[in-house]
Amino acid sequence: MTSAHTIDVKSLAELVRAQAAGEVAMLKAEHGIQPGLAVVLVGEDPASQVYVRSKGEHSQAAGMHSETHRLPAETTQDELMALVEQLNDDPKIHGILVQMPLPGHLDEKMVLAAMDPNKDVDGLTVVNAGLLASGMPALIPCTPLGCMLVLRQTLGNLSGKRAVVVGRSVLVGRPIAQLLLQADCTVTIAHSRTVDLPAVCREADILVAAVGRPQMIKGDWIKPGATVIDVGINRVPFRDPVKAAEGKTKLVGDVAFKEAEKVAANITPVPGGIGLMTVACLLANTVTAAKRINGLDG
Amino acid sequence: MTSAHTIDVKSLAELVRAQAAGEVAMLKAEHGIQPGLAVVLVGEDPASQVYVRSKGEHSQAAGMHSETHRLPAETTQDELMALVEQLNDDPKIHGILVQMPLPGHLDEKMVLAAMDPNKDVDGLTVVNAGLLASGMPALIPCTPLGCMLVLRQTLGNLSGKRAVVVGRSVLVGRPIAQLLLQADCTVTIAHSRTVDLPAVCREADILVAAVGRPQMIKGDWIKPGATVIDVGINRVPFRDPVKAAEGKTKLVGDVAFKEAEKVAANITPVPGGIGLMTVACLLANTVTAAKRINGLDG
Repeated sequence: MTSAHTIDVKSLAELVRAQAAGEVAMLKAEHGIQPGLAVVLVGEDPASQVYVRSKGEHSQAAGMHSETHRLPAETTQDELMALVEQLNDDPKIHGILVQMPLPGHLDEKMVLAAMDPNKDVDGLTVVNAGLLASGMPALIPCTPLGCMLVLRQTLGNLSGKRAVVVGRSVLVGRPIAQLLLQADCTVTIAHSRTVDLPAVCREADILVAAVGRPQMIKGDWIKPGATVIDVGINRVPFRDPVKAAEGKTKLVGDVAFKEAEKVAANITPVPGGIGLMTVACLLANTVTAAKRINGLDG
Repeated sequence: MTSAHTIDVKSLAELVRAQAAGEVAMLKAEHGIQPGLAVVLVGEDPASQVYVRSKGEHSQAAGMHSETHRLPAETTQDELMALVEQLNDDPKIHGILVQMPLPGHLDEKMVLAAMDPNKDVDGLTVVNAGLLASGMPALIPCTPLGCMLVLRQTLGNLSGKRAVVVGRSVLVGRPIAQLLLQADCTVTIAHSRTVDLPAVCREADILVAAVGRPQMIKGDWIKPGATVIDVGINRVPFRDPVKAAEGKTKLVGDVAFKEAEKVAANITPVPGGIGLMTVACLLANTVTAAKRINGLDG
């Protein structure tokens, strides 16, 4: 049995970041515009701190104006809203990203409702969801956008392919389904209530796993020759009881990779997979926002 | 071979209208609020005139305040926008419906962008599309809402059923898919680029036809025992050459009804089908809008 091609997401993410850096340089040189990204972190969640640091570093490396606002966990709704409104009005800032999840006492929907949709580089506001659903130019959530770039690079034209998206979250599953539909795939959305999920997955030429359950999708759920996009990033204990006893953990996807790679034609790894595209697409979206805000299409 | 149950859409539409009339009476009696609907028609399109007249008559019959604004075909964008803004500000009006399609010189998207989303009883604005896509309370387009009422009345709980929507229009196919997903169906969206559309249709426990092609979906595309919702309303010449020569036409759906009823368990007819639900749901949406605008939930 031959092994699947493991998609080189790392190189593609580097390419997307390099393209963003090139556009930043062009916008500075030709228009005197430096795209600016503001990342807001409330509280001390360790995973969020890692993500926020990475976003700050990559946006600086791409030549952007980059601000990170670290607020204490006890920040009030009014204080957070005031910061968002200040960033809405700040001409140096073209992209605003409020790192989710917020501490429990803060209302994420209210924060998103206050954000200028033109600066919503995470694509989370109702307006951007509506533009996407209506087939109009939107700021597209970074992870779904990253999945599409990987698919287009791997398969080229997606027209007529059967795509199955497992997971229907507002942040990932649903926007990916919209984008696959725009790319002329026949799209099925499956989820926890789906009857005979393995059989539905086996229909897929393109299988997108976005459920957040470690290694849930097994090798025999995959159609031979399919392309598998694993969006899941799950932290689990090591199988080795010695390492597990030491509290060591590792990252795995939603797909049982070792089984799946025997069946699929192409598969993204975890770690080193779609997660890398998320930050790269954040840079791309910030460039897009800067261009649109300045009437330079995008 | 037994024949399908033809779904009695007419009675359900009457029930929905009667419920709306009951809510209007309750809102008047208990809160002194009379839900108001404004319908705007630009130009002389004969089909649009029929629809607009029907909407006016049914909203009056339900006890609503009802206005029909008939504007000449040469109305300018500015004049139409001014009317929409006037209706946005009019406290007597809770629902605004601009009958589409508009004459070619008018920009439909600009008109929708100017409309207060809280009064968008046709559910066509970007904000309502985004609320629907985000799983938040929205004003839902009338035809998709009508399809869901028919399905719930016919099948009860839809959880886990495989639904196939043929057609991906922003006005019908996509919102129906969103609603079926919210109802816990496993949803597939098929369209003109779908490979082997008959086989995809045969997967459906619930088949929704929303393509606008007369009798395209054949009997052998339907899984035995499926429920078929025919959204299409297509005007075609009579087969009888004598009647056809007289210029007589009839209405048919997107489904070849006579073949389909031999296979399906339940099917909506055309005429006398989903079209009746569209007006009924417009009344229901106007009541919903009036309640929400007045802080009475809905």
